[in-house]
Parts: sequence; structure tokens; C-alpha cells
Amino acid sequence: MNDVQNSPDFRNITLDEAGIKDLQYPVTLLDRANEKQRTVAVISMSAELPHHFKGTHMSRFVEVLSRYTCEFDGSTIPAILAELKQVLDAESARMTVSFPYFLDKKAPVTGITAKMNYQCTFYGKSSPEGEDFVLGVTVPVSSLCPCSREISSYGAHNQRGHITIEVRSLPDEKGIPVLVWIEELIEIAESSASSPVYSVLKRPDEKYVTELAYDNPVFVEDMVRIAGERLMKDDRLTWFQVTAENQESIHNHTAYARFEWNRDGGN
Amino acid sequence: MNDVQNSPDFRNITLDEAGIKDLQYPVTLLDRANEKQRTVAVISMSAELPHHFKGTHMSRFVEVLSRYTCEFDGSTIPAILAELKQVLDAESARMTVSFPYFLDKKAPVTGITAKMNYQCTFYGKSSPEGEDFVLGVTVPVSSLCPCSREISSYGAHNQRGHITIEVRSLPDEKGIPVLVWIEELIEIAESSASSPVYSVLKRPDEKYVTELAYDNPVFVEDMVRIAGERLMKDDRLTWFQVTAENQESIHNHTAYARFEWNRDGGN
Amino acid sequence: MNDVQNSPDFRNITLDEAGIKDLQYPVTLLDRANEKQRTVAVISMSAELPHHFKGTHMSRFVEVLSRYTCEFDGSTIPAILAELKQVLDAESARMTVSFPYFLDKKAPVTGITAKMNYQCTFYGKSSPEGEDFVLGVTVPVSSLCPCSREISSYGAHNQRGHITIEVRSLPDEKGIPVLVWIEELIEIAESSASSPVYSVLKRPDEKYVTELAYDNPVFVEDMVRIAGERLMKDDRLTWFQVTAENQESIHNHTAYARFEWNRDGGN
Amino acid sequence: MNDVQNSPDFRNITLDEAGIKDLQYPVTLLDRANEKQRTVAVISMSAELPHHFKGTHMSRFVEVLSRYTCEFDGSTIPAILAELKQVLDAESARMTVSFPYFLDKKAPVTGITAKMNYQCTFYGKSSPEGEDFVLGVTVPVSSLCPCSREISSYGAHNQRGHITIEVRSLPDEKGIPVLVWIEELIEIAESSASSPVYSVLKRPDEKYVTELAYDNPVFVEDMVRIAGERLMKDDRLTWFQVTAENQESIHNHTAYARFEWNRDGGN
Repeated sequence: MNDVQNSPDFRNITLDEAGIKDLQYPVTLLDRANEKQRTVAVISMSAELPHHFKGTHMSRFVEVLSRYTCEFDGSTIPAILAELKQVLDAESARMTVSFPYFLDKKAPVTGITAKMNYQCTFYGKSSPEGEDFVLGVTVPVSSLCPCSREISSYGAHNQRGHITIEVRSLPDEKGIPVLVWIEELIEIAESSASSPVYSVLKRPDEKYVTELAYDNPVFVEDMVRIAGERLMKDDRLTWFQVTAENQESIHNHTAYARFEWNRDGGN
Repeated sequence: MNDVQNSPDFRNITLDEAGIKDLQYPVTLLDRANEKQRTVAVISMSAELPHHFKGTHMSRFVEVLSRYTCEFDGSTIPAILAELKQVLDAESARMTVSFPYFLDKKAPVTGITAKMNYQCTFYGKSSPEGEDFVLGVTVPVSSLCPCSREISSYGAHNQRGHITIEVRSLPDEKGIPVLVWIEELIEIAESSASSPVYSVLKRPDEKYVTELAYDNPVFVEDMVRIAGERLMKDDRLTWFQVTAENQESIHNHTAYARFEWNRDGGN
Repeated sequence: MNDVQNSPDFRNITLDEAGIKDLQYPVTLLDRANEKQRTVAVISMSAELPHHFKGTHMSRFVEVLSRYTCEFDGSTIPAILAELKQVLDAESARMTVSFPYFLDKKAPVTGITAKMNYQCTFYGKSSPEGEDFVLGVTVPVSSLCPCSREISSYGAHNQRGHITIEVRSLPDEKGIPVLVWIEELIEIAESSASSPVYSVLKRPDEKYVTELAYDNPVFVEDMVRIAGERLMKDDRLTWFQVTAENQESIHNHTAYARFEWNRDGGN
Repeated sequence: MNDVQNSPDFRNITLDEAGIKDLQYPVTLLDRANEKQRTVAVISMSAELPHHFKGTHMSRFVEVLSRYTCEFDGSTIPAILAELKQVLDAESARMTVSFPYFLDKKAPVTGITAKMNYQCTFYGKSSPEGEDFVLGVTVPVSSLCPCSREISSYGAHNQRGHITIEVRSLPDEKGIPVLVWIEELIEIAESSASSPVYSVLKRPDEKYVTELAYDNPVFVEDMVRIAGERLMKDDRLTWFQVTAENQESIHNHTAYARFEWNRDGGN
């Protein structure tokens, strides 16, 4: 059976990426509190396509992936990318894995516990320039407007917001990026907002978070700067980006702010 | 050229609907303040498929539609449905037209004006049981929690919400449903919430809406009941449904309430 | 602490629903092949709100839910609804649970296996009129156009489609609806299309599904009728609805068909 | 009334962006065939926030925007960005405008005409490094798999795909990027696929596009290379990126390819 993909191409164009996306797949991840967590990911995978090949072999992405999904830890993405480069005869490969991650979260006063979801992304790339890995976490929070509080005789508008933190960390002695826990980034994001949000709150909890938010008014700009200040002090990090978005309760559009930082200066 | 769709089918199954959906199309609508408004709609159209035909003629939906989009008023959907029934040899036809509608909205204190978007839907059906038409409008609003305000020493959580009102009105002497303006339903929804939302607010406006919301705390349940009470008094209406949703600022999920009403009792 | 929700309301309006939606939560389900399957659901829960109460107690929905998510089978939704009615002092309660469900699916020739996702929904309602339960499954398929094949000298346009089957089944002696497996509905949907789709296919598999699709051309109307014919013969079912949608490869819109059926006549 | 946003900030963090997003607004654009076209855009606008200011003035984005939407041409985005930098006392500003754009498109044999939608994006940035402008167009197309055609005895799987072309062009003598028409990029994308797609096709048209697609099999990789070859020859362009995605009809995931090019070498 003729291998059309493998036939030569004469246009002399090397493609940055050829691959698959929007593949839904169950994965098992590391969980700081419970050792392992099963969730459902949306995955994209690609490889560079050398100029002399007509097409990539799309089926090999899923074949490689399906051998790794039962145990997904810090060494998994580098292993998948290495295997992809080999089976596809490619100089570079990339992968993005996005998934909801759940924590058991206690209500602040009553201590009632329910699961709370955080959308996370692993991004990996392996190329002649080296290995790259980015961890991203999006954290829903509550934000209360400092301006509204200052100028109003009573009350202050507040709303649901989302803080996204993306980080790159230094490689360890094996060249694998030092582990940064999803849980650590969630903690930083939640403490940069007016208040965390919860899946379940009883009345004493609701009183607590209402007053906590009123006592901690922040703009999207503040949330980004507060998180940024803490992240800059983390010696493991070489790069990060913080984005905050507010589903404004006085508008039908979103307010946002973004800060990108590199350890070696510039941003 | 063989007409496969027109070939006989022997499974004796009449389909409720066969048609198209997710068709994006520019349309020109009636606008109470400016006579006409051009916007972009997402459209679905279908007809019953009699048991003896293998398939409907999908191209005819777009052919019929494209003759009507330049002037879309109360008589347009009945005219389209009548034409669809004829060209498709069908006993019933349906159509849904969803679009953002814009109003020039003044900030409450400074009077600064900007356009504000409201997502609307026209739904029409023509069948042996008669003509049906539903107008739906989704209105973004601000809602402030009565419980949070009551139990907290200061502040009160509030958030962006959406109130959706759908109505059926009595037919006029020509059998066409009495006109209910999109603008009327927007006004009812906005006055059922803690405060309207705006595209542009300066500081005096922000103070005003913050205090207005604090003075008018409502649950999603209240918003639905307040709008419902007003709609029940509107003699033009034979049926309505009100749904309110809050993008809770203390949770990562939505709170909602729904009320359906029929003039002739029951709901 | 004052219970505002519990305070009386004098507008005399009973709400059809008050509750929560868009709550993401991990759940463990029955799996025909592997006993259990963990996945992530999006959940809505609501209860009727009697006219004399100002608001429902939103936190109780999550409290009840979180006790049941570790083992979700046919008796779970009735148990949750019964508990909701009790803790919320409501006459009726509803619940929708939507989730991706995964099967190990073998490529048709090479037998290579990978997981394939199917979007499913459980809908339950408990009210004075009785218990209701609907199972819904959306199955991605391939469809090849009979008209295009007939009129073209070679080739035929085909595309990804989705068949959604929703069913109600008879109650067993305990009043719980007879179990219909997700896997059964997937099998019916896939055999109603031109060809199933797969997560991984090697070249011999690709040849097989290409020719299989060409040998089995179907309109969306055909897919709905083929599935409908089989479902009507299933003595367990009292009601079903089949919807087919094609992401048309010659258009930028969708073609669809829908058929609703009741055992006791009419549709 | 205190201007909280204007108060000093001592964290010494300059934010890359502070602004608004997801603002829906009607806009009037240049249209090559009809002079002007009204459509509805989703807009984001931001400015750099100097380290010494606590917050940006979010209302000014909408105030500036609302003066320009009635006539949006090549000079509009630079004018808006210049005004934003001034009123916000910022060194740089950015703006993204995304909208459906419609062409009257004739069926290839019968000549029947209907409107066809193309999703477009204008991206602009003004900073001390200079002015930047990117035009992006996403074009739905039909693609037929060369491998499937080669290995199958009859038929070939095909599907709806989307080709996205993004371009930067040389500045003219006034420093404004040379105009590249949306219509030009649509033409390139459509001729890089197996066949264009249409809003309305009669049977002779359907026969034509079916056979056209069978005669022009392309992988996503081919579509990107074919478009890339043509774009490289366009002397107006300094940079482009082409992405092709297929809604695979044999899979439930997407296949994609991407090629980025710079006139001055490298990519």
C-alpha cells in the first residue's frame, strides 16, 4: 500500500508544525494531596515537517500518546516528545495538555468540603534549541473594585475574575524542569485576589468572604502585580506570565491586565 | 440529473425536522429609535419531511432566506415559513434567528453614550395547528445578594447576571402576533435587577450604580419574580418564560431560576 | 444569623426551578466493559421554589451532590433528587449530568486500540407526576452524501457528523428505569451512519472506512430514520429522540434532521 | 471624587497590558465590491500601564472606540492607538478587532448567489518600537485526503477545513501598512484547498465541487504549502503565517499544519 505521506515534496517548505488537536483523552496526573488524580484532557501534538516529506503520519501521535496516559508526571511530556521526534523523523515536537484539576476545598469558617475545579495546561516543546516546559493554571477568584469602594457611600461592585499564571522553571540535574505544583500557583493566585471562591459556602462562610473581599479591594492590575511580586521571589522560576480578567459586574465586557517577566531582564 | 432527495422512502417515518443550522447571515431589523438596524444573525431553518420522501432540498432554505434578509420585520418570518412549506411540499416549517441587538445607552449620571449589546432570538413555526412566534431577549444585569448584605457587617457580594425573557403575544386581526419591542423587554429585565450594566461609566456613574445595586439586593429568584409580575400584567402576552442566571462572584458555578407562565392557567 | 432565603415571599409566584448550573465535578460511572469509569461532569441541579419562600438554599445542592459522586449508577439520580426535595422542602427536583465517556475502540482492520470519546447526558426529574429519566448520547460519525455520489462521475462529499440519541425506558419493578447502556446507543448510532469514526487508523483501516462510507451513503434524514427504526423495535423504550447533524464539507453551515417518538402514538 | 486609578503605585512593576476585552460593537468596514459593509465585532483594547500608576482608566477605551466605529478603514486603528496612548499617558497600546465578513458568492455552475461568512481579525500595536498591523482571515474550505484516494478502490474521505492566513505588509510612504484586501486572502485560501465551500449549491454545482475536490486532493500540509508559496511571491508582505485545520471525517479530532514566514529569513 503506497505511503503517500512519505512521498517526496519539492516545494522546499519546512512546516513549523503538523499534527493533531482537540483530541479528548482521559489522563492520570500527580496530585500533591492524593498521589494521583484522574481527569479528562484536551490534547494537541505536533512535529516539525521537513521540507522533503509530503505529509506527517497523523496516526502515530495517538499511538504514542495512548501508551502514556495512565501515569502522567514530570517526565512524561519529555518522553512523549522524544518518541515523537524519533517515529516521525522530526527535529522538533510540541504538545499541549489542558485539563480541569480538582482540589478538596474547605469553606473558610464551617470547614465544609467540596471539590473545586481549576483549568490547567502543560505545554512542552523539544527542539534543537533544547527542551521547553510551561505550566499554566487558571484560578477563579473574587475581586472587589477599589475605586467603587472609595467613591461610594456604601457597597462596592465585585465580580468573578480569573487569574492565569504560567511559569517556566530551571532544569534540575537531569535537565527536567524543577517541579512546581499546580497547588502552589493556585495558592498564589487566590491570595492575590479580594477573596478565593468556593464550591460550597454556608452563611457564616458567606459573611466571611463578603467581608474579606471588602477588606481587600483590588483592580485586575493589582492582582497581576501582587502575584507578580511573589513569583519574582521564587528562585525556581526563569519566566512567568500573569493575566487577570474580571467579568465586570457593571459592564458586559471583561477588564484584564497582563505582566510577563524573564529572570534575565527584559519582559 | 437524478433527484435523489425526491426518491421515495418506504420506512414510513415522517421526520419532525430536516433543515440547516449555524448559518451566519447579515440581517436588517426594525429598531424603535433608529428605524432600522443592521446586525449579523445565526440562523436555523427546517421543515417537516413527509414519510414518502427520502430527503429535503437543503439548498432551498438558503435560497428563500436570501430574498428576505434586507428587511426583516414582523411579517418576515411568517412569509418565509409559508414559502418554505410550499417549495418543500411540507406541512410545517420552523426558523430561529439569533443576533446581537444594540442600543445607544446613556450612563446614568454623566449621560455619556455608548452602544450596549443584547442577544435576541426570533423563533417561528408554521404548522396545521397554526402559527407560533416567540421573541427572546437576554439582558446582562448586575445583581447584589440580599443574604450577603444582611449577614455581613459591610459590603455584599454582587456579580454579572443575565435575565432572559421569552414571550408569545396575541395575534392581531391579520393573525400576526402583536408587536412587542425588544426595547420593552430590556427595560423590564433591567428594572428587575439590582442595577443595569453599561458599556461606559465614568466615576460619578460608577458611584451611582454601586449604591443603586446596594439599595436593591435581589436573588435570581427575585429577579424572575419581579419581571414575572410585570409581564403577567401585560395584556398582549399569552405566554412567557423568565430565566435569571448569576455568574456568582463567590463560586465558580452559576445560580439560576426559571418561571414559565400561560395566560390560560397552569405553567 | 438571619436566614434571608427562608423569609416569606408575598408575590404568590411558585418558580419552576431555582438551582445551580455549570458546576464541574469528577464522577465515577458504571462502565460495561471495565466496571467503573472516572470522568469529569458538568452538572446542573434545581428544585421547585414554593411561592411562600423568598429563595432556595443554593449550598445544599453541592452538599448533597458531593456525597454521591464517587459511585454514580442507575439509582444515584433518584436518590439525589429524593434528598433534594427533602432538604429543600420542594415538590419537585431536577438534575442534568453531562460528561465525556470513553470506550477502547479497535481500528477495523489492524485492531490497534485507542480511547474514543462520546458526550453523554443523564437528565432526571422527580415530581408529583412521577420519576423521569432520560439518557442521551452524542456519537461522532462519518456520513457520505447519496446525492453527491449519484450525480458525480467520481468521488462523493462526506463529512464528520454527530448523531444524538435520547431515550426513556420502562420502569422496572422498583420503579427505576430499565438500564440502557451508553454502549448500546453508540452501537446503534455508528451503524446508522456511513462509517464510524476512530481515534487511530492505520492505512489498511483508512482504506476500509473510506470504502465502507462510499458503500453506505446516507443523508442526515437517513441516519435518523435508520436509528429510529431500530429504536422502535426495542421493547424497553417508551420514548426516544434522534437528531443527526452534518458539518457539511461543501458548506460552512450544518445540515440536520430530528425525529421524536412515543410508544403510545403521536410524536 | 478621588481618582484611585491615578494614585501612585510603589511595586515598580510596569504592566504589558491593562484594558478591556470581549466588547461586542457594530462596525462599518471597507468592502472591495460594495464600498462599505456593516458587521458586528468583538473588540479588545489595552495600553501599557506605567509602574507609577495604580490602574488604567478603563472607561476611556470605550469612549475613544465609540468615536471611530462608523467608518473603519486602514487609518482607523493607528488613529485609535495614538489617541489611547495620549489619553492614558502610555507608551504603547494594542487593539484586536474580530468580525464576520460577508461576500456575495456565486455557485460555480448555476451562478446562484448567497452571502458567505469569513471570520477576520485586525490586530494593531503602537509602541516605541513602531507601528504593527496584522490582518487575519479564516476561510472555510473542503479538503480531500490524498492518502485515502490513493489507497482506496473508490471514494476518498473529505471534510470541512479552515485555512487561516495572517499577514503583515510593508509600510507605505505615510508609514501605514500597504492595503491587503480580505478578498485577496480568501482567494488564496480557497485556491489552496480541494474546493471552496458555498452557502448555496444546486445539483449541478454539487457535482462540480465533488469532482473538483476529487481532482485536487490535499493534506493540511499541502494547503499550507500551496498558500505559502503564493504568499512568498507577494512583494507587499513582510511576514505571514498560514494555518490549516481539518475537521477530520474519519476521526473526532482535528488535523492541522502551520507555517510562519519572514521576508528577512528565518521563520
